Amino acid sequence: MAETIFSKIIRGEIPCHKVYEDEHVLAFLDIFPLSEGHTLVIPKEPAPTIDRLSDASAAAVGRVLPRIARAVMKATNAGAYNILQNNGEAAHQAVHHVHFHIIPKLQDGSGLGIDWKAGKLDTTAGAELVKQVVAALR
Amino acid sequence: MAETIFSKIIRGEIPCHKVYEDEHVLAFLDIFPLSEGHTLVIPKEPAPTIDRLSDASAAAVGRVLPRIARAVMKATNAGAYNILQNNGEAAHQAVHHVHFHIIPKLQDGSGLGIDWKAGKLDTTAGAELVKQVVAALR
Repeated sequence: MAETIFSKIIRGEIPCHKVYEDEHVLAFLDIFPLSEGHTLVIPKEPAPTIDRLSDASAAAVGRVLPRIARAVMKATNAGAYNILQNNGEAAHQAVHHVHFHIIPKLQDGSGLGIDWKAGKLDTTAGAELVKQVVAALR
Repeated sequence: MAETIFSKIIRGEIPCHKVYEDEHVLAFLDIFPLSEGHTLVIPKEPAPTIDRLSDASAAAVGRVLPRIARAVMKATNAGAYNILQNNGEAAHQAVHHVHFHIIPKLQDGSGLGIDWKAGKLDTTAGAELVKQVVAALR
């Protein structure tokens, strides 16, 4: 994959507002926040999308999400928040290195805007799709 | 925490379109999908929000996100997708048991709608916020 700005941040060549680091994970404030406390949690392993990330790195990121979320919520007094991870430009991904956004939803309305146009799953189509997903998982 | 419909699904008392299960995690199709293939990945451990989930369960969910995402993308031919995890009603959470949505973004435009109103982080305010988050992490 092509080198991204996040690789430079991980190596310390570009500064960041770091809040957490361990062997596999780095977390820092987003410099273009949707709300106060908007934080990025990234694996050090470079992968453009999460489907190309190793299980170990994905587990390491997952493991620290609760504690970082707690700290961000405490620091911002947020009562609600979204965790968002985008894959592909059509899904709003800008930097092609896996990153989880922790986005406080604040009283002033700032945070992630969500447009939720839900349908209803057809049972027969759902059963067929399950077969395909399960086959793909093998 | 109050029992939710997901506890009943985990115990098999309510059916679901199951695509994956292991000791700690269950994944099934969302019956109110934003797009074809919209899948929920949940820890079996009951926690209303991810800040209250154990590190072990959070790691177990994180570990399987890449493989489930790959399978959903393969089954739906999606080229992009979002992973979203909502915490609190103000952040669009409806069922109070932690769940990660995997939402394909399809050619027909279906999927997660995102409204992204980004600001710019003030360096001084950012440095102060880092101190607070780091203190909360201790």
